[in-house]
Amino acid sequence: MNIGIVGLGLIGGSLGLDLRSQPDLHYVWGISRNQTTCDLAVALGAVDVASQNFASIPQIDRTDVVFICTPISAILSAITSVIPHISQTAIITDVGSVKSSISLQGQMLWSRFVGGHPMAGTAFSGIEAAERSLFQQRVCVLTPGIDRAALEMVRSIWESVGATVYESSPEAHDRAVAWISHLPVIVSAGLLLAAQREGNNEISQLAQKLASSGFRDTSRVGGGNPELGRMMAEYNQTALLDHLYSYQQTLQDLITMIEQGQWQEIQTALEVAQHLRPLYVRE
Amino acid sequence: MNIGIVGLGLIGGSLGLDLRSQPDLHYVWGISRNQTTCDLAVALGAVDVASQNFASIPQIDRTDVVFICTPISAILSAITSVIPHISQTAIITDVGSVKSSISLQGQMLWSRFVGGHPMAGTAFSGIEAAERSLFQQRVCVLTPGIDRAALEMVRSIWESVGATVYESSPEAHDRAVAWISHLPVIVSAGLLLAAQREGNNEISQLAQKLASSGFRDTSRVGGGNPELGRMMAEYNQTALLDHLYSYQQTLQDLITMIEQGQWQEIQTALEVAQHLRPLYVRE
Repeated sequence: MNIGIVGLGLIGGSLGLDLRSQPDLHYVWGISRNQTTCDLAVALGAVDVASQNFASIPQIDRTDVVFICTPISAILSAITSVIPHISQTAIITDVGSVKSSISLQGQMLWSRFVGGHPMAGTAFSGIEAAERSLFQQRVCVLTPGIDRAALEMVRSIWESVGATVYESSPEAHDRAVAWISHLPVIVSAGLLLAAQREGNNEISQLAQKLASSGFRDTSRVGGGNPELGRMMAEYNQTALLDHLYSYQQTLQDLITMIEQGQWQEIQTALEVAQHLRPLYVRE
Repeated sequence: MNIGIVGLGLIGGSLGLDLRSQPDLHYVWGISRNQTTCDLAVALGAVDVASQNFASIPQIDRTDVVFICTPISAILSAITSVIPHISQTAIITDVGSVKSSISLQGQMLWSRFVGGHPMAGTAFSGIEAAERSLFQQRVCVLTPGIDRAALEMVRSIWESVGATVYESSPEAHDRAVAWISHLPVIVSAGLLLAAQREGNNEISQLAQKLASSGFRDTSRVGGGNPELGRMMAEYNQTALLDHLYSYQQTLQDLITMIEQGQWQEIQTALEVAQHLRPLYVRE
């Protein structure tokens, strides 16, 4: 197949590495705003050719599928940019972590658009962080639109790089990822920011020395990529706020138990939490 | 040395394993309420002898140091129980994760008492979970009292099993661990309990399927041992509540930014969180 990747960061670069290592020979082209990134993507073997300009890509008019792997804010403009260069039969898909604001508009721009969200990432970003097999045993959500064949084609590509594909409406996707991905970022960042409010310097320094695996894990996503966190909040504002209000209420209930010395109730709540976790976490 | 361990769980058992593997031959005795635990502790090599009764321990009157490794709620009564069996020169120390409610009362019961808190643990508990080198490169806090020599003796034992020892007042210790250990438990449990409030079953099931490393890490300590979480809240109520109020205020500030669409402010807050994390986490 002739496959395009627009945006050569961690996700786009890793997808290219996997596609180019497959036995069925794909021709993979890439687009980046940055010439150094283009050169590096070719050197690393993530793409066959890369350019800052669609017009410079050989055989772009014979493209089968284009993956838009830019930041969320650039997805719709990237779709608009690629359209003049591809044939009517080409499929466009994306990898944005929110879908309500993308899937419908994407389909209005291009009937063969399929919204997608591969749930894979590392602590790093950029083409330098791209790695083989990033999507192995990871989940990818696709949002079905009017073109079933387009969805099945995109599904087969994600499955070929090891992902498990689920289908969902854009709205259900956004509410679900707000629970398991976006809410944790705010909850976790709040922990780091609250600890900074400690007024006593001796206690603050002792806390820093004593912090170990519990604090490390609970603060990890809150101490992650700020641009990504901001995008999650901006593009999934409604679902995130709904969940934050639920979280505030839950926290208030726990605080009331602690204020009133209801130790058995606290233990019961923690037992419920312990039983809930395996529903989400398979270790 | 003649060293006693009262309470043969993860911490007591692991300490025994390390002490008995040292070149200077220690005689290590153990006490558990449970005969099966006593037998297992001897079989695993965590102690030389173990019994349910202090009176059955050979040479208990020649004990140099007793480590109380029971749950927090049983520490003071364990001190009271061991006192009739040991000489005036023996040192008693503990491993409880709160110190204000233990250190002063412990010293009133026994002038050679030294409060201690080795910050080590795993997801498991009980003598079956005991492991060698659990305290290597971990931190142990000691709360200095009236007997400097007793503290130095306890310090040398913790250092001999690989721990880094810090000294702190009981109050500073409790406020510090409330930040880095107890607050994260409540914040993290709240995440699991809030997600359970999702009323739409489709979204709830999708969230469970999509949850990955971010949710796994942020929910880990909240889905841990409920008895331990309850003890933390019960015995460190004041510090934990203070920090929960700070956390609530921090969270409200973040929510207000998201409500008002202050995306640059959210990004700045997440940048601050990102810069704060390395103060606590050395990866």
